[in-house]
Amino acid sequence: RSRLPAFATHQVGVAGAVVDESTGKVLVVQDRNKTKNAWKFPGGLSDPGENIGATAVREVLEETGVRSEFRSLLSIRQQHQHPNAFGMSDMYIICRLSPLTYDIHFCTQECVRCEWLDLAELAQTHSTTPITSRVARLLLRGLESGFGHIDLGMEELPAVYSGTVYQLYYRQLPPPLRP
Amino acid sequence: RSRLPAFATHQVGVAGAVVDESTGKVLVVQDRNKTKNAWKFPGGLSDPGENIGATAVREVLEETGVRSEFRSLLSIRQQHQHPNAFGMSDMYIICRLSPLTYDIHFCTQECVRCEWLDLAELAQTHSTTPITSRVARLLLRGLESGFGHIDLGMEELPAVYSGTVYQLYYRQLPPPLRP
Repeated sequence: RSRLPAFATHQVGVAGAVVDESTGKVLVVQDRNKTKNAWKFPGGLSDPGENIGATAVREVLEETGVRSEFRSLLSIRQQHQHPNAFGMSDMYIICRLSPLTYDIHFCTQECVRCEWLDLAELAQTHSTTPITSRVARLLLRGLESGFGHIDLGMEELPAVYSGTVYQLYYRQLPPPLRP
Repeated sequence: RSRLPAFATHQVGVAGAVVDESTGKVLVVQDRNKTKNAWKFPGGLSDPGENIGATAVREVLEETGVRSEFRSLLSIRQQHQHPNAFGMSDMYIICRLSPLTYDIHFCTQECVRCEWLDLAELAQTHSTTPITSRVARLLLRGLESGFGHIDLGMEELPAVYSGTVYQLYYRQLPPPLRP
């Protein structure tokens, strides 16, 4: 990391897949500003200095009225020359969240629809995006076999230089079975 | 993603853990510009428009002389007010790579040491960073039980708006076992 100059090249967007484990449903929206009516997870751009999980929780609340808490990171998309990023690159991260409330009061400026949808239905429908589809299938596997199979958990660690903390996301594996 | 303005807030750094599966060794370096002599994976900042995997392969070659190819994404660190990023945020990603060549010709401007080190030793030593340690333990599990347990694989998908492609990193699970 020695050959500077360093500069920011990416904007970061985060979406939250809020999964209700008791019903197998997930919170999805349809954006107002898109031509095709595709179900997707609520989300938006990170504010400067905002943690990934905090963006997911905030955007879900703003768009849907549902309060939630961060569980894990599920997928990352990197896209260059993103149309909304003025030629810069875009990192788009999907997190798994757990609901704290269930009543929907969605933002009519941003969304035309908002529902708790069966994960199995979301995994199969064509009215969604390729990424949402893949993450829905991941989440379905999580519901069936445990989210430990799909989660990148978060660990907060001290940053030596700045005296602050950083967040590390990785698969926290169970101890291996020894005969 | 409707409430703009959008702007770049993050620099992206990528390190490559080159694992030689036939020997259980991994390629590590010690940076010239750090006070503590800690083993870490070679890496550096992404160039504008450069894919995560391409950065890892390029930085490994520049620092160590070893050619490699991208396999998977393993972990992500988010850090705000990174000391080398002028108050911006830093996303630091570690990838798994496979070696194509094995001879080391390391860059003496950037590194003081460069070795193929036993993964088991790297997972236990105190002469390393907290992140390297955790990723070494993940890789050790991968060696023992298959990298399918730890990998976020990459899938390239078409971007509808721009006509380009994007890269999606997520756990590509095997089909579930049905009785």
